[in-house]
Amino acid sequence: MKEKIITAEELAKDMREISVAEFFERNKHFLGYENPTKGLLTVVKEAVDNSLEFSTEAGILPEVKIKVKQITEDRFKVLVEDNGPGIVKEQLPRAFAKVLYGSRFHTLKQSRSLFGIGIKGACLYSQLTTGKPIKVESSSGKGPTHIFELMIDVAKNEPKIISHATKENPSGWRGIKIEMEVEGRYISGGHSISNYLKQTAMANPFAKISFDGPDGKIVFKRVTRKLPPRPKEIKPHPYGVEIGILRRMLAATKAKNIVAFLNTEFSRVGKRSAQQMCKKARIEFDRKPQSLTMEESEKLYKAVKATKLMAPPTNCLSPLGEELLIEGLKKETGAEHVVAVTRTPTVYKGHPFEVEVALGYGGSLPEESALLFRFANKVPLFYHQGDCVITEAVKEVDWHRYGISQSKGQLPGGPLAILVHFASVWVPFTSEGKQAIACYPEILKEIKLALQDAGRELARYIRKKAKLRESMLRREIFERYSIVVAESLAELTEKDREDILKKLLAYSKSNLQREDRKSD
Amino acid sequence: MKEKIITAEELAKDMREISVAEFFERNKHFLGYENPTKGLLTVVKEAVDNSLEFSTEAGILPEVKIKVKQITEDRFKVLVEDNGPGIVKEQLPRAFAKVLYGSRFHTLKQSRSLFGIGIKGACLYSQLTTGKPIKVESSSGKGPTHIFELMIDVAKNEPKIISHATKENPSGWRGIKIEMEVEGRYISGGHSISNYLKQTAMANPFAKISFDGPDGKIVFKRVTRKLPPRPKEIKPHPYGVEIGILRRMLAATKAKNIVAFLNTEFSRVGKRSAQQMCKKARIEFDRKPQSLTMEESEKLYKAVKATKLMAPPTNCLSPLGEELLIEGLKKETGAEHVVAVTRTPTVYKGHPFEVEVALGYGGSLPEESALLFRFANKVPLFYHQGDCVITEAVKEVDWHRYGISQSKGQLPGGPLAILVHFASVWVPFTSEGKQAIACYPEILKEIKLALQDAGRELARYIRKKAKLRESMLRREIFERYSIVVAESLAELTEKDREDILKKLLAYSKSNLQREDRKSD
Repeated sequence: MKEKIITAEELAKDMREISVAEFFERNKHFLGYENPTKGLLTVVKEAVDNSLEFSTEAGILPEVKIKVKQITEDRFKVLVEDNGPGIVKEQLPRAFAKVLYGSRFHTLKQSRSLFGIGIKGACLYSQLTTGKPIKVESSSGKGPTHIFELMIDVAKNEPKIISHATKENPSGWRGIKIEMEVEGRYISGGHSISNYLKQTAMANPFAKISFDGPDGKIVFKRVTRKLPPRPKEIKPHPYGVEIGILRRMLAATKAKNIVAFLNTEFSRVGKRSAQQMCKKARIEFDRKPQSLTMEESEKLYKAVKATKLMAPPTNCLSPLGEELLIEGLKKETGAEHVVAVTRTPTVYKGHPFEVEVALGYGGSLPEESALLFRFANKVPLFYHQGDCVITEAVKEVDWHRYGISQSKGQLPGGPLAILVHFASVWVPFTSEGKQAIACYPEILKEIKLALQDAGRELARYIRKKAKLRESMLRREIFERYSIVVAESLAELTEKDREDILKKLLAYSKSNLQREDRKSD
Repeated sequence: MKEKIITAEELAKDMREISVAEFFERNKHFLGYENPTKGLLTVVKEAVDNSLEFSTEAGILPEVKIKVKQITEDRFKVLVEDNGPGIVKEQLPRAFAKVLYGSRFHTLKQSRSLFGIGIKGACLYSQLTTGKPIKVESSSGKGPTHIFELMIDVAKNEPKIISHATKENPSGWRGIKIEMEVEGRYISGGHSISNYLKQTAMANPFAKISFDGPDGKIVFKRVTRKLPPRPKEIKPHPYGVEIGILRRMLAATKAKNIVAFLNTEFSRVGKRSAQQMCKKARIEFDRKPQSLTMEESEKLYKAVKATKLMAPPTNCLSPLGEELLIEGLKKETGAEHVVAVTRTPTVYKGHPFEVEVALGYGGSLPEESALLFRFANKVPLFYHQGDCVITEAVKEVDWHRYGISQSKGQLPGGPLAILVHFASVWVPFTSEGKQAIACYPEILKEIKLALQDAGRELARYIRKKAKLRESMLRREIFERYSIVVAESLAELTEKDREDILKKLLAYSKSNLQREDRKSD
């Protein structure tokens, strides 16, 4: 029996638009919701990341309260409250219930929330697994509190306001309070919520974070009351712009001529550089940007890439700094010695980025294998360690040089803790779940350099420690023999045995100490 | 200097919608465009996958011609032409230049293109890296050929028709021809285009695929002219439906009462099962689906999950079958012996899926490590091998049992080739780039079972081969001693040495053969 051929007309009937909310609902594992354990953690993570991001952006010392309450075997109520700036009522529904909506995607500066997906994903997951709306309260501190119950209209990717009420706010409460019911599984240790918050506190030492969960209450206190400087927005750097984007910018610009276009729409392109680019591309300075042909814009593109420019400004970044890194890692791991390195910023594809590394050694760290803590823009990366450029960089460093054991191609041995913080205006995550950074060669190289810098510093400590141990050993042996020598000498010289021994020990002590000082 | 606090109003000014085209343009590495080598391959892959998908869907034996021509050092022209059904001119612009548009997302059946992203991603990548439109020609064989030049309006995620022309088509040409210019890097071996097409041909033995690339021309001929049966669309199975989806279906259904709703909108729910569910949930049979309260729908949800139902129908799947698997792997790898297993379909989260495995042994296969070929819905998976459930399953099988070497937690040793085909109405890829399958326990288990089935069969061959080698060895030794024995016997008995030897050898031969037969 031969099957009939289906025509293009028949096939066309099935073609439809797919809403991005439907897409991520079906592929919820892209967002970190592949199982109930990770699902519960991701819900908390998205809310906390937002709280920290917008509090610090507003210039407020963040205080975040998280509550996770088990309702049934596989269902939890999650509450997250912050003291941030709140959100205006007109924007609130879309900020929580429209996928791909946000303020960060179109600006170039370091940020925790780059995609405009995070908290909407939590809302999607909540309504998918419980059928219920999420509840959001918000107030700016002046005026009433707005209370919304929200769902996402998945087919349209638009917020569905289930209810909206206002409440008097005489106490002047300011912030956002989210309440969600979700399917979940609560675990302790490993990839638990409290471990996630512990690492979050490490990278955000200016935040007070309290967690009231099934295992009891924990508070992560502030280590500092100083907020890091606000990262500034920058313009794109020409080295990071592709030809397709350049053509779009040419079409959309309000600049009257090509020199003004290059000078005003990019960072680090002065008037002289702009003219130089035009000369190279054989385009007159006063040409209207919209008038460039395909061929001319290609020439301009090549000229731009061939012109020497300063690296982009780096006040768009907000690193942690060596002091906080050391304090954080010490507190977290109980290492006996910690070193830290903050590299100067550098650039990949026009995006400024900065790598920070802290290494902790000894103390209560485990002997078998190094602990690795990964961070991107102050957010801990918890999953997909094997797929992350940070892990790759750690494996590629030759740790033997620094006195640390390592099997070929593996993480180094203990007692070692490695913290790597990647700060950038654009983090190339491997997926929407933001759990690992893609392996760009420029990033890999820079992380390795930072690890090596820190490794060298740690090696000095490890060597010194080894020497100390050695000299202790030598002294011990000398002292043991001194007893025998003293006895023999006493017999030969007929002097007091104890007296000789005392002198011998005193000599050994001063002499070995001198030697130790020399070798420092 | 204290920084000023920024208010919610000021923060709100930056909030905007992000178009899904912008999103994937910026995150092009999610789609497989993280570097020029992979970019070029992905462009070819997306076009070829579409050609195979829609030709077979239409019932046409596919013939796909691919041409890749280097224009400059890092720029290529890619042409892909098929003999498929074509696409109607009204749908053509969106099918190629609107992200998240397609016919497959909303239907449940095995398909190569699940997302409605693939070829649009190629279009995005092409215009981003060259600034140029793509060109698409299409004809249904009757009537003229339509020729479009298309770009994506990235900010709106809508097609931008640069030009549209029609051309007489007196020869009755039918199919689609795509022409794209892209940034790329061409490589041979490894993850090359020709290796990709070779594997594609393996999983689509009914297709003729020709490739004209920088290294010359190759044609992958058809192995069969029989198209696999068309997978049928099925309704969702209740076990795979989450409460949020159930509530949405209740709100949207045209069914007049709850029993009819359950009976008509799901697969495998007969009228009696539907009534049983209602009874369990204490909902009257004639209730209007839209009238169910939150609480009632939760009760219904639990009742549905607690009711015993048949597994979903499996004619939505289209496996390759053991015969084609064996033929394909033999041809591809030059293995001396190949075994194959097609498991019966099973279910994860209500989605039917089926695992097929072929194992090749010996011949020209390398000794060091097994070769692994991964497929999902007849598409080769080329990248992210380490992140894929198939790899995990292969590592978790104890290959020693089947006479194959293996270091703990690693891929087994050679000479072995492993082919795994995962066929499903919904493949949980780890990212939009569709290069690895997420590690769901049900899938992991089923793949391991398939590998073990095939492993046992292969083990018989390996054991037999080992035994043959052993018995050959034994005979060799016996024959060597026979000469000495014959000499001694000849001296003792004064009979002819040659004669004795002949008899001894004949005896050994028949005796050892008998033993071999016994142990078979």
